[in-house]
Parts: sequence; C-alpha cells; structure tokens
Amino acid sequence: MYSVSVREHFMIAHSFQGEVFGPAQRLHGATYVVDVEFRRLDLTPEGIVVDIGRAGIALKAVLDELNYRNLDEDLALAGKNTTTEFLARLIFDRMGARIAAGELGPGAAELTSMKVTLNESHVAWAAFEGPVEMA
Amino acid sequence: MYSVSVREHFMIAHSFQGEVFGPAQRLHGATYVVDVEFRRLDLTPEGIVVDIGRAGIALKAVLDELNYRNLDEDLALAGKNTTTEFLARLIFDRMGARIAAGELGPGAAELTSMKVTLNESHVAWAAFEGPVEMA
Amino acid sequence: MYSVSVREHFMIAHSFQGEVFGPAQRLHGATYVVDVEFRRLDLTPEGIVVDIGRAGIALKAVLDELNYRNLDEDLALAGKNTTTEFLARLIFDRMGARIAAGELGPGAAELTSMKVTLNESHVAWAAFEGPVEMA
Amino acid sequence: MYSVSVREHFMIAHSFQGEVFGPAQRLHGATYVVDVEFRRLDLTPEGIVVDIGRAGIALKAVLDELNYRNLDEDLALAGKNTTTEFLARLIFDRMGARIAAGELGPGAAELTSMKVTLNESHVAWAAFEGPVEMA
Amino acid sequence: MYSVSVREHFMIAHSFQGEVFGPAQRLHGATYVVDVEFRRLDLTPEGIVVDIGRAGIALKAVLDELNYRNLDEDLALAGKNTTTEFLARLIFDRMGARIAAGELGPGAAELTSMKVTLNESHVAWAAFEGPVEMA
Amino acid sequence: MYSVSVREHFMIAHSFQGEVFGPAQRLHGATYVVDVEFRRLDLTPEGIVVDIGRAGIALKAVLDELNYRNLDEDLALAGKNTTTEFLARLIFDRMGARIAAGELGPGAAELTSMKVTLNESHVAWAAFEGPVEMA
Repeated sequence: MYSVSVREHFMIAHSFQGEVFGPAQRLHGATYVVDVEFRRLDLTPEGIVVDIGRAGIALKAVLDELNYRNLDEDLALAGKNTTTEFLARLIFDRMGARIAAGELGPGAAELTSMKVTLNESHVAWAAFEGPVEMA
Repeated sequence: MYSVSVREHFMIAHSFQGEVFGPAQRLHGATYVVDVEFRRLDLTPEGIVVDIGRAGIALKAVLDELNYRNLDEDLALAGKNTTTEFLARLIFDRMGARIAAGELGPGAAELTSMKVTLNESHVAWAAFEGPVEMA
Repeated sequence: MYSVSVREHFMIAHSFQGEVFGPAQRLHGATYVVDVEFRRLDLTPEGIVVDIGRAGIALKAVLDELNYRNLDEDLALAGKNTTTEFLARLIFDRMGARIAAGELGPGAAELTSMKVTLNESHVAWAAFEGPVEMA
Repeated sequence: MYSVSVREHFMIAHSFQGEVFGPAQRLHGATYVVDVEFRRLDLTPEGIVVDIGRAGIALKAVLDELNYRNLDEDLALAGKNTTTEFLARLIFDRMGARIAAGELGPGAAELTSMKVTLNESHVAWAAFEGPVEMA
Repeated sequence: MYSVSVREHFMIAHSFQGEVFGPAQRLHGATYVVDVEFRRLDLTPEGIVVDIGRAGIALKAVLDELNYRNLDEDLALAGKNTTTEFLARLIFDRMGARIAAGELGPGAAELTSMKVTLNESHVAWAAFEGPVEMA
Repeated sequence: MYSVSVREHFMIAHSFQGEVFGPAQRLHGATYVVDVEFRRLDLTPEGIVVDIGRAGIALKAVLDELNYRNLDEDLALAGKNTTTEFLARLIFDRMGARIAAGELGPGAAELTSMKVTLNESHVAWAAFEGPVEMA
C-alpha cells in the first residue's frame, strides 16, 4: 500500500463539558498540527498517490472553516465536545466530502483510506482513520 | 478507528547477551521516549477514546517501576535481553494489566488495541502492537 | 557558558486587537510548547547548572497560572495583546521572580541569563532572552 | 506484532514529467530522510526483530546507489517519475532483495512485512508498506 | 531581546567544485527547511516583533527565486559553491534587502539582527546570523 | 557569523552522587543525541565553515570513547558527576583537542567558537559553548 501525507495547522478556542476534563472545562484553546495521510493500492500513471497540490488546497479549505475561531460558537458543532479525537473525525469527514465532490481530481476516486492525526502538544495527539467511503 | 497517544520517558542501564549485540554487550544505558497509542472503534459519550488523565497516571506508574534502574538487576527480567522491542512488549503487557484492573476507568473496557513505541535515539525505535486482551 | 533547558506546555484562548492580526482578532487559542534555558558560567560543586527538579516545579507553577484559561479575562494582562513574544517575556519575568524568591534553590543565584521560547506551531515560535536580573 | 525502525537519508536531483507537477517539472532536488520499519510476529531467541547492525548496512548500501545522483540519468529508472511514493517502493523492493539474499542474516527470513517512509520536508512524506515477499 | 521565527522550505539541485566535497561533486539536490529568526530589543505598540504575515510573504518570495531549480544554472550564483552555509547567507542578504525596501512594514526598521538556519537533513544544518544592516 | 552543525548519539550508564539527584543516584543510563555547532566569521574559499566529513569522523571518535560504557568505571571521569552539562563540556574539550591536533584540516584553525548540545530526552537538554581555544 502507498501513502502520501501532508501537514497543516489551525488554532482554536473551545471548552469541554464533563468532569473527566478537569480544568479543560474552562474556555481555553489549542494549536492542532494536522497530518492527513492518503492511501491507495497503486500509483497513478504519473506515479503519484494523489495530486498533492489539490490535496493541500482542500485541506486548507477544511481547516479555514475552523481556524481562528471559538468552536463553542460553531453551530455545526453545538452540543459536542470538540476533543482532539472528535476533530480528527470531523476533518476526516470533511476531506472525504471534498474527495467525493471531485476537488482532489478524478484520480482521487481510487483512494482507499485516509488517516487524520491532530498533534495537540509535544506529548499528546489523536487520530481517526478509515475507508474513504466512511467519510 | 479512533486513537489517542501520550508520550513519557524513562532512563535505564542494561547490557545484552549475544554476539549480535557487539559493544552493546557491555553495561550501557538508554533514554526511551515512550509513545502509547490507545485505540477504539467509537468515542465515549463525552467524545473521548480514554480518560487521558488516568492513562497518563497509569503509564507513569508502569515506567516508574523501570525508571532510573539497572535492568540487569531486575529479578522480573532475569535471563532476558531487555532490548527496545522486548521493553515495548513489557510495557504493553503492564499497561494491559492496569486496564484490566480498571485503572483507566470503566470506559477503557472498550479499547480494542494498543501500540507502544520506544524511541531510543533520533535514528532508531521499536514498537509492539496488538489487541488489548493480548496483554 | 553552560546551559540546561526544560520543556513544558500550556493551552489557552485569547484574541488580539489591531488590524495587523487579521483573523487572529477573533477569539481563538493556542498550544504553547515552552522551552526555558538556564545559563551560568560554571557548574555547581555537584556538576549542575540548576536543580532541574525545582526548575521544573517552578515552571509548571508559572504555566499553571495561565493554563486552560481565556487570557482575555486575566486581569493581570488587561489591555495587552498576549502575543507569543509577549508571553515569552511574561514567563521570563515570572520565572525570574521565583528565582529571586529562592524557589530554585540557593545555587540559582549564580544563573546569569535565561531564554524562554514558545513554540506555537510547527512553523512559528518566539522567544525572550536576557540577564536574570532583568526579570 | 513487533517492529524495529531505523533512519538514514540521501540527497538527489531529479525532474518530473506531467502538468500535475507544476514547477517540479524543472530539474530540482530533495533530501529524503528514510525510515524503514521491519515487522515480525515474535522475537528471535536473542530478543530482537532483526540484526539492526546488518539492517543498517543493507539500507546504507541501497541508498548509496541513489545518493548524490541525478535520478534523471539513472538507466534503471528511465521513463519513470521518481516521486517520493515511487522511491519508497523502489527502496522497499531493494531492501526485500537484500533480505532474500541473506544480507540481514538467517533470522530475517521471519520478517513478515516492511514499511518504507520517505520524509521530503517538514510538511510532506510518503510511504510504501507490504509483505516482505511482495518485494 | 525578543525574537520571532518562521519556517518554510525549498527544494533544489546543485553540484559542488572541490575535492573536499567527495561524491557531492556530482549533480544532486536537497530539501532545505529554512528558519528565519527576527530580533529586536522591544516590542511594537501592538506587542509584536514583526508583522509575521508580511515576513512570511517576503520569505516565500525569496525562496521562490530558488525553489524547484538547478542552482548550477542560476547566473547570480555562477562560480559559487552553493553550500548550505552559503545559501544561509544568501537568504539573509535577500531578506535584508526586502526589509530595507519596506516589504515587512515600517516597524521592521527596528529589527536589530536576523538568523537564517537551513536544515538539510535530520543530522546536519547550517546558519548565518548578523545585524540587519549587514545584509 | 556562519555556523554548521552535525548530529550523532551515544548511549551510556552512570549514577550521580548527591541528594539533589533523587532517584538518579541509582545506576541508570541515557541516550544522548549530540549536536556540535562549529562557528566562524567567514567561509573558506570552497564556501564552507569546516570539512563536514572530517568533523563527523572526529565527533564519532570522541563519542566512541564513551559509547556503550558505564561512565562510573571510566578512570578519566573518576570523582565526577557525569551530568548532561558536564558531558557537554567534556565533548567540547575533546573536540577542541582534535581541532588543535589538525584532525579537522588546516581550515579549522579559523573556527572561532563551538557549541555542544546534549539532548537527553524530549523534554530536557544541556549545552556548553565557548571559544575554540577554551577547549
């Protein structure tokens, strides 16, 4: 299996509901350094997994919807704890929607799976991975 | 699949038996930067993979049993080469025992698998991964 | 010159005032991975720059005053843009006050200078450095 | 499953054919920091995945065939776009041939799979992984 | 002293003249991950060292003049060995020219010094630092 | 000022004398990832700071004297706490002796200063820097 990965970041404010979160129940924030891994069984005729230029533009568009915001005020996320693992899935789904919409080019139809990792500090990170059609 | 990872470290002395180890047959030591990845299929109602606070406490307890010691004198490891890959499995097993004992909370029962990676330098690392019940 | 450095992190929400900040004028947040470098000309009789245990406790105490908070609501910071470079100086000053108060032990009196670096993402960081008595 | 990974690097010039590559159609170059992960189900009697000394020598030999060269002039690669993902597979195959030739020792026959990752910058990397016999 | 640093990268082909370079006399290439550190004694009224948005645009413009090229064919560099340390100085000078031309905004006039670091692999890097007016 | 840096590592056992060290008074060990920075005011006619090949050989020779050993049994270090900062100075001095002996080539006579950093984990490191003639 082949894979290609790209890295970007975004910076948000949020708070969590539930005693398990301790002081993170207060409004705070995070920088998330995001790695998206695209996987397929064979390379395209050009010898690539995906058009990395288009993939980067799509990822930036997905992150721009979240970047420099207070996620507690994002209506699409109301009632959710926007934990690192939750956000990994959210970005997975939104990248999948852009693949389905053709934004990564026709070759992207042969991507089999993706993994989205959010690094929240030098000592903690979370990820979601699955088949592209799961998105 | 969702995953959450945490990082800690420990520092030990040890030596290896066997010609394959060359100069590492002498008493020497290592810093191991340990990454433990916890995996499950779905998030808890709070939106998490595992209570990261409890997971960190359990990992620190496991590493404290090894930290600042000469592993050649650890009776539980007698007759074993405490290679990086061996230690990855040891920590996997000991984390699994703490999960089974409920130390990571009741939600941890739904963890499906774990991966323990020990980074021994900027150019070498080893890992063990498997189902939690393997521990 | 000798130096010893330790790393910790904290996670906050904040917003900035001024057109130069563009979308960062909105309430957002950041993870700051903080490196504090302690410098002196000679080692103590024990062969150290500073008691790293005490230094780590002091740094954690300084960061706990900021961690998991909305800095826009911190009265001590009212009217200030809590940029990465501003926060580097703030932590420098607060570490200096703890050194002056003896929290790092008597040997810390011979520290000559410090550097505080805040890593805000994989592509940006800021620092403040100066003589300890500047703090 | 156990794994051991080693890191090396090589530096090459090349160019790509195809509009999808934009300015990378020009002759340019890259540093590739290469991670090779060796996997097996159980450890050898010595407690290792593979003789890391021999593995490192084999990897260096594979990379020396590419290092400090213009890949556009390598007859073995004629007509190919030597993308990061293509090179990951190439190195996977060449490492597999050396395993089959016994260069990593007899114990290496029990390696089940390998993963070769090429880091081309701080924001992009690619990999190929598969069963050893696929090489 | 305050500093702010930003990271970017570029990818080039080149060769070196002189026996000291060994196999690097052949046409090969490199990825350079570039860190530019901007320094000043005090913060601007907004609480910053420099407009990081403008600094990033200027750095990208400087690197675009080199990126995806064979430096052996760059007339401005004829007769020069474009070593990592040479390129660090070149980028220092070109950033300095853009500061002098006002591209980083009027506040950039108070920058005192800069450091440009080029990371060429996980085991080697080079830098040039000096007063801004040296550029 | 120009600088060039190279990275290597070594792995040792040792123990410390003194209550300040807590559990590190027991025999334990460490991996040290060593960065040596060589500095000079101008480049050589070839456009380099130092012959990086020779510098790497000298560094490896210095580290081989320590690597895979129990420093408590090294007669040259008897009565010393081999802390990270102490070892940084030791390596600085030994590199300086090799420069003085001509091992880095005649051009190395114009090196003005060096910095030796020992990274002992992902959260702690120490360094010694000074004029080359101080070694």
